[in-house]
Amino acid sequence: MAKKIAAFGEVMMRLQVPGFDLLSQASTLSYSFSGSGVNISSALTRFGHTGYLVTTLPANSVGDAAVSYLRKLGITQSFVVRGGNYVGMYFLENGFGARPSRVTYSNRQDSSFNTAPDGTYDFAEIAKQVDVVHFCGITLAMNDSVRHHMKCFAQAVKENGGTVVFDCNYRTAHWGEDGYAKAKPFYEDMLQLADIVMMNENDALFILRMETDKENRQEQLMELIPAVARKYNISVIAGTHRSINGDNTHSLQGFIFKDQVFTFSRTLTFSVYDRIGAGDAYASGIVHGELERFPAARTVEFAAAAAMLAHTVAGDTPMSSESEILRAMSDSIGDVER
Amino acid sequence: MAKKIAAFGEVMMRLQVPGFDLLSQASTLSYSFSGSGVNISSALTRFGHTGYLVTTLPANSVGDAAVSYLRKLGITQSFVVRGGNYVGMYFLENGFGARPSRVTYSNRQDSSFNTAPDGTYDFAEIAKQVDVVHFCGITLAMNDSVRHHMKCFAQAVKENGGTVVFDCNYRTAHWGEDGYAKAKPFYEDMLQLADIVMMNENDALFILRMETDKENRQEQLMELIPAVARKYNISVIAGTHRSINGDNTHSLQGFIFKDQVFTFSRTLTFSVYDRIGAGDAYASGIVHGELERFPAARTVEFAAAAAMLAHTVAGDTPMSSESEILRAMSDSIGDVER
Amino acid sequence: MAKKIAAFGEVMMRLQVPGFDLLSQASTLSYSFSGSGVNISSALTRFGHTGYLVTTLPANSVGDAAVSYLRKLGITQSFVVRGGNYVGMYFLENGFGARPSRVTYSNRQDSSFNTAPDGTYDFAEIAKQVDVVHFCGITLAMNDSVRHHMKCFAQAVKENGGTVVFDCNYRTAHWGEDGYAKAKPFYEDMLQLADIVMMNENDALFILRMETDKENRQEQLMELIPAVARKYNISVIAGTHRSINGDNTHSLQGFIFKDQVFTFSRTLTFSVYDRIGAGDAYASGIVHGELERFPAARTVEFAAAAAMLAHTVAGDTPMSSESEILRAMSDSIGDVER
Amino acid sequence: MAKKIAAFGEVMMRLQVPGFDLLSQASTLSYSFSGSGVNISSALTRFGHTGYLVTTLPANSVGDAAVSYLRKLGITQSFVVRGGNYVGMYFLENGFGARPSRVTYSNRQDSSFNTAPDGTYDFAEIAKQVDVVHFCGITLAMNDSVRHHMKCFAQAVKENGGTVVFDCNYRTAHWGEDGYAKAKPFYEDMLQLADIVMMNENDALFILRMETDKENRQEQLMELIPAVARKYNISVIAGTHRSINGDNTHSLQGFIFKDQVFTFSRTLTFSVYDRIGAGDAYASGIVHGELERFPAARTVEFAAAAAMLAHTVAGDTPMSSESEILRAMSDSIGDVER
Amino acid sequence: MAKKIAAFGEVMMRLQVPGFDLLSQASTLSYSFSGSGVNISSALTRFGHTGYLVTTLPANSVGDAAVSYLRKLGITQSFVVRGGNYVGMYFLENGFGARPSRVTYSNRQDSSFNTAPDGTYDFAEIAKQVDVVHFCGITLAMNDSVRHHMKCFAQAVKENGGTVVFDCNYRTAHWGEDGYAKAKPFYEDMLQLADIVMMNENDALFILRMETDKENRQEQLMELIPAVARKYNISVIAGTHRSINGDNTHSLQGFIFKDQVFTFSRTLTFSVYDRIGAGDAYASGIVHGELERFPAARTVEFAAAAAMLAHTVAGDTPMSSESEILRAMSDSIGDVER
Amino acid sequence: MAKKIAAFGEVMMRLQVPGFDLLSQASTLSYSFSGSGVNISSALTRFGHTGYLVTTLPANSVGDAAVSYLRKLGITQSFVVRGGNYVGMYFLENGFGARPSRVTYSNRQDSSFNTAPDGTYDFAEIAKQVDVVHFCGITLAMNDSVRHHMKCFAQAVKENGGTVVFDCNYRTAHWGEDGYAKAKPFYEDMLQLADIVMMNENDALFILRMETDKENRQEQLMELIPAVARKYNISVIAGTHRSINGDNTHSLQGFIFKDQVFTFSRTLTFSVYDRIGAGDAYASGIVHGELERFPAARTVEFAAAAAMLAHTVAGDTPMSSESEILRAMSDSIGDVER
Repeated sequence: MAKKIAAFGEVMMRLQVPGFDLLSQASTLSYSFSGSGVNISSALTRFGHTGYLVTTLPANSVGDAAVSYLRKLGITQSFVVRGGNYVGMYFLENGFGARPSRVTYSNRQDSSFNTAPDGTYDFAEIAKQVDVVHFCGITLAMNDSVRHHMKCFAQAVKENGGTVVFDCNYRTAHWGEDGYAKAKPFYEDMLQLADIVMMNENDALFILRMETDKENRQEQLMELIPAVARKYNISVIAGTHRSINGDNTHSLQGFIFKDQVFTFSRTLTFSVYDRIGAGDAYASGIVHGELERFPAARTVEFAAAAAMLAHTVAGDTPMSSESEILRAMSDSIGDVER
Repeated sequence: MAKKIAAFGEVMMRLQVPGFDLLSQASTLSYSFSGSGVNISSALTRFGHTGYLVTTLPANSVGDAAVSYLRKLGITQSFVVRGGNYVGMYFLENGFGARPSRVTYSNRQDSSFNTAPDGTYDFAEIAKQVDVVHFCGITLAMNDSVRHHMKCFAQAVKENGGTVVFDCNYRTAHWGEDGYAKAKPFYEDMLQLADIVMMNENDALFILRMETDKENRQEQLMELIPAVARKYNISVIAGTHRSINGDNTHSLQGFIFKDQVFTFSRTLTFSVYDRIGAGDAYASGIVHGELERFPAARTVEFAAAAAMLAHTVAGDTPMSSESEILRAMSDSIGDVER
Repeated sequence: MAKKIAAFGEVMMRLQVPGFDLLSQASTLSYSFSGSGVNISSALTRFGHTGYLVTTLPANSVGDAAVSYLRKLGITQSFVVRGGNYVGMYFLENGFGARPSRVTYSNRQDSSFNTAPDGTYDFAEIAKQVDVVHFCGITLAMNDSVRHHMKCFAQAVKENGGTVVFDCNYRTAHWGEDGYAKAKPFYEDMLQLADIVMMNENDALFILRMETDKENRQEQLMELIPAVARKYNISVIAGTHRSINGDNTHSLQGFIFKDQVFTFSRTLTFSVYDRIGAGDAYASGIVHGELERFPAARTVEFAAAAAMLAHTVAGDTPMSSESEILRAMSDSIGDVER
Repeated sequence: MAKKIAAFGEVMMRLQVPGFDLLSQASTLSYSFSGSGVNISSALTRFGHTGYLVTTLPANSVGDAAVSYLRKLGITQSFVVRGGNYVGMYFLENGFGARPSRVTYSNRQDSSFNTAPDGTYDFAEIAKQVDVVHFCGITLAMNDSVRHHMKCFAQAVKENGGTVVFDCNYRTAHWGEDGYAKAKPFYEDMLQLADIVMMNENDALFILRMETDKENRQEQLMELIPAVARKYNISVIAGTHRSINGDNTHSLQGFIFKDQVFTFSRTLTFSVYDRIGAGDAYASGIVHGELERFPAARTVEFAAAAAMLAHTVAGDTPMSSESEILRAMSDSIGDVER
Repeated sequence: MAKKIAAFGEVMMRLQVPGFDLLSQASTLSYSFSGSGVNISSALTRFGHTGYLVTTLPANSVGDAAVSYLRKLGITQSFVVRGGNYVGMYFLENGFGARPSRVTYSNRQDSSFNTAPDGTYDFAEIAKQVDVVHFCGITLAMNDSVRHHMKCFAQAVKENGGTVVFDCNYRTAHWGEDGYAKAKPFYEDMLQLADIVMMNENDALFILRMETDKENRQEQLMELIPAVARKYNISVIAGTHRSINGDNTHSLQGFIFKDQVFTFSRTLTFSVYDRIGAGDAYASGIVHGELERFPAARTVEFAAAAAMLAHTVAGDTPMSSESEILRAMSDSIGDVER
Repeated sequence: MAKKIAAFGEVMMRLQVPGFDLLSQASTLSYSFSGSGVNISSALTRFGHTGYLVTTLPANSVGDAAVSYLRKLGITQSFVVRGGNYVGMYFLENGFGARPSRVTYSNRQDSSFNTAPDGTYDFAEIAKQVDVVHFCGITLAMNDSVRHHMKCFAQAVKENGGTVVFDCNYRTAHWGEDGYAKAKPFYEDMLQLADIVMMNENDALFILRMETDKENRQEQLMELIPAVARKYNISVIAGTHRSINGDNTHSLQGFIFKDQVFTFSRTLTFSVYDRIGAGDAYASGIVHGELERFPAARTVEFAAAAAMLAHTVAGDTPMSSESEILRAMSDSIGDVER
């Protein structure tokens, strides 16, 4: 049954060097607008839900372009506030084989989203209108004001009986020195409010400073995730293990921990066209599975296939419909579809 | 020795989304003009023959663009009729890895070719001027009027002592419900007139409803193809088995059945850039081998290499010369040719 | 005050040759989706209203691309039906100076919109939800089924107290031989239901076969338009006179006839970048002026400025906001806006 | 009645910087293949004749691309020889307003055409097959070997009763120091063999060193052209006067001198998109008029309109059909053609 | 004689929407790097001088791209410091005819240049190595820290006997409310240090709050400029009057006031391709004239022609050589240069 | 410690067909400027040295574009002479999988570099200013005049105590028939002057006609290279063995022979994006290692990693910094760098 899902987050302008040129070689860029919230909201819209974005964009031509782009992605605009001055930006230079992709950020701290004053959003009202809200750890790294928005919004949703999804998504570069220590209290706040959490054993180890004497990733995962679920009272924890192979392919296995049980997807190995945003595709698959009350095995396979397909389309934002993902869950690769 | 070869078929406008974008992401298309007949006629021109196309194109700027494009491919225009209103079109979204390519057709039924009235073509005259004529099962799927053209043309060529090539090329989407049953009588008509036929065991099983108790593809092939040759009195039957691998490569093995003997090519495995039209490259290799009286082994290796190279060039239409194909028949992959 | 405006009409895919190449010179096309209804609905959205489109699009990737594009333009999708098989298309080759632009249509008759069966739209329900509905004479040229939809929809809106806008927009090529005679009864049906009509003296003379002994266009206009308003009981009639100058500029003067009074805009002369769709910009300016109860002089100047600006942006669809149009109504041309 | 026309000349590769960038600003080029002979042959093909090119192109991938391009333009390939090593090239940077366009040549002297040895072409055989042959003064500037080819070819055509067209087209840069003196004997050779000559008073004054005491261009023209016709026994002399205006427009008036009578076209003023090759469009209009036995006034207006339209299309080579030129000979500029 | 000229200023990344699309229509941008200092330094390099830039750029891939671009423009890199985090950016949407171009800035305040700490530049050392230094009023609008750099640098140059050029270039948007009042003291500081100043009567009236009872611009100019020169002890004041015409052309007249004498250029009217940066072309023409000791009339005509040509090339930065400007100072517009 | 390194060589214009189209399919080219000398000089600049190029370029717009491009690459222009008429060019059609890339040269013999007269370069002066000079065997293939330049330059450097690097780089196509025999004396001249030589056993066998009874490449290498070093008194000889795999990957192992000891790099296997110029990346890595006095093992791993990364960037010229190469020397492939 179709639900109403709001994501809270910054809209970033992605400025991508075409092909495999460096920024110092090329003279054109392709641009699009994305962000974890954008990706989640749009992906869930493609699965038949109504996706909203709670964000702020400037009232200038860059903001207009962002709004047009979000509309194109199918995101309902009701909770997009116009104000402030800037859209956060990042430059993307595509890697090839042995040369990794490179992201260079412009100033995000002064973006409309990150400078939106108290009272910008009517969280009480929004919380009444939506079933689920999604937050991302990247947002948590921004500043006190944004963190305050996040917490207020999550609380409002909880009070209205809604579901809170939180994706840990810790980014070293954003937290700076002693980042894990700085981040811990804010992460704990969000975990306490969250129903569905995206994370893996590294988040438990480094952010939450939990301890284990296991050395193998899988064993660490199986010890720490249940502990996290218990400590913060979280219904569902899901995440992935990814490895990057030498031949432009990645391997990815998803897991979900629910009702005290771990369920793992098959390990998928696939060619990668655009890696950015694939984590959001996985998260949206988990959320969709939960909303549709899929069995855990189906949820985790669906999420993994959604993530795999997200590596094959251009841009940060997943573009696959539910039926395309279901088809990709079968083993064989199809010939041209006519 | 250079021969005169006419292909009968529709010219389609191919509208391709650049790169790996979806039609809902992009804003530009690249276009070209193709079709089985175009591909065969052009490929044989590159092998040193004179290729004609027997088709109808509208007398407007889309038709003009098609004619220019066919000329660029080296196709002699003498038998291209101008009339009717439309060119059939298809949109192509390139797949990547786990995501298959997707073809979306516009209305073909009202194209100039598919609405060309009786008497459009002077088949008796054309038959006098050409040595070989090529037909394709896709054309057979269109409508009664086109099927009538096909049969008349094939008969005229037979009466003039020419060679009739027929590629079964059954497309499920074009025949609709109960397609095999609908298609059978028309296929039988063409098989009875044909000297060289492109097909494999599936065509025998599904279209011609032949039976076998073999379960393995190879065994089915080796039982059914001789039966087809016998029943319809066909000199040469050739075809391929293809498999699609996970890493953007395909594997392909060709066969030829002639003088009661099967000859198989090596199984080639190769990276795929543009899969569409590769079957026509194989067919043109078989026809060229037959016209040049290559030994069967050389013919089938030549056709397989031609098909392999057709996967490495942009567009539906094969672009390789005879010498390039001969070079590719050797095992090693060359460095930059300077 | 913001109103709800629905437009009824076909979505066309515009396939434009870039720059000033001919279709037989180029190899790429840029594409967008437009149509009178699209243009009107989007333009009024930019003026602060809520614009809907009542149309049918196929459930395939071309239809998906169209829906994405309409969303990008800000059009609310509630009344877009998915069904049928095709999107109508046209190719555009840009003219330059002495060489006129050229439009070549693909088959429109089999588009999803033109083949939508009875009962496709719930006009009674839609009529309850909207304040204004817009129809275009191009749609009237299509076929009986579409004309029947139009009439039902217009009647439903009238019954609900809504406003009916009708743009005569007679296209010779679509009506064929004896076109004016064929068209007349259908135009009369629509005029009888319309509150606001876009037309000029030529429509009265040729479609409605009204007579005048005046020879000068302006005199014909001033005699015939009041007669039309009287005969069909139309509140507002508006239109333009356009002339095309040798130096890539056009001149345009708008008029509005309302409450028995003619009001004319200044004659604007301006450089032309993209002429297509400018008439819809004018119409949307008139509708906006009426909805906002502008004085007639302001309405007609606003509409003329909207039309002028529509000639300066790429694509069929007007992109100007109300404030940009108001700024353009002043005389001087601005330097770079920083 | 359709004639067979051969042009003798070099095929140049045009490498054009897109838009209005300089070569030191851009990173891409668009390429095409042209040359006076290409332009004339293609233009006359569009008027319904059969156009041949007598030239030499290398047997490598640049030569293949040239051949494909010529075919696309409709030029019959029978007399194209493959040999030598290079294609002549020129870079084009588009001017804008006060900044003139700039052409930079690569080495032409070593092109396949300019190094083709004696015996490359079977002029006796070609002369039997064609009605008209076209030569250009640019070719005359190349080297002795090419000049020898030209003279042999022209003589062979005369002997077979064909028509020789010669376009003086003197290019200062190609002849170098004392160019006029060097050029004179070669020009006189060609004039003595020519039936139709493209030139104006400057060619008479500077190349042929004829004298006049008139100072006004028009008076010089009217004195010198009849003298040239008499001295070299030329049936038809035609040419243009061009002026370049400040606002990206040019003005052009054509003349034809025939049967002792001057006929002038109207002076056309028009916006210029691509100036290169427009002189060849004029020449092909004159040749067509003569072949079709147009009255002189129609011939000169047709040629002038052909030249005007050639300024509005991309590339060196005229793209207009006879009917498009006839339409452009009327005064009014049309709206979009649908 | 070739001089060494340093410009002090921010490098901006220009992100331009191609063609005439809006940012909300397009999906690609072309980028380049510019700024007043870049433009001046590069233009003077093209005139044969050695141009330096004194600026700060981040040590990331955007900074690398900027450095590469500056090198391409011929700017000597010795005084470019790498540090800070960001490059200032602006988006440019090209206007057309009645629709003005639009510039949207990203955050400049946090750019590497605008956050460079005290001691970043060794002004004493730089001042020893250069003959002339150029400053721009846009830089003055940034913040106290940058203004401090400017003043220190100008003083160091004065102390070393160098020439200080100051272009008033007041930008309303950058100074905010009460901008003129805020700006006045800083402008006065710079005027007192400057030898050559770019300004016109509006700067005197609005920034310097000088008074006149003249109402005509020309009369105001002729009264106020000498007063400014006197008050601040400035050797040379130069500037322009520009008007924007309806047909995509601008008119521009330059003046220079020197040795108590006004000299005016002809009024040039020309088609405009890229208006941005043309003021810097004018300033570089004035500086070059002064350095080369041109007579005033030649200087002002040279500067005006340099400005005119700068409107005809893509990008902010002038691309014309001295000889191209001298050629453009003659009246006639040339045909294609071969 | 940063050194001054000059490379002597021709600048070529690379004209590349975009994507995987053939020259006869496409209509645009991307261009850049390269050559062994360009690649070496630019690569060493990126490692912190100062790179010069000793070459000649024409004083026209193609030469200007080349100079701008070299500056962009960071190459110091002091020793670039402007003269002659042409820039050598080559067309590049990218191969895919089984289809090899194809290079087609334009006329190089008449390039400015290859026609530069005696006395063009002041080698005595240049030799005083640089520490190292690099020569390439491709240059040696050109003509006597260029070979004379090479030898003079190498001698001058030796006399000044500088280091001479010589890359054998034998190209069959350039030397023509009996090429090895023709080449031998010139190669021996250079080897006698060289300190660091790039070659492998094939150069010893075929150019120097040395003999061995070993049949295995590795054994041949280990026997012949020490013999070469001894015979020509060379301090360092380095080179690679490369193999081309079926899946668009190459494998490459580097060696260095120094102080009588062979050191080998690991065999690297990597995906290939642009193979051209990778040999120059290897050479520049060897030179850098020697200049920085790396241990041999580090030098050869550094050079091999530099070569690997050069296969992953667009264009002939290596773009990697020292730190990027050091990072690539570790085993694991990184995720997106943010």
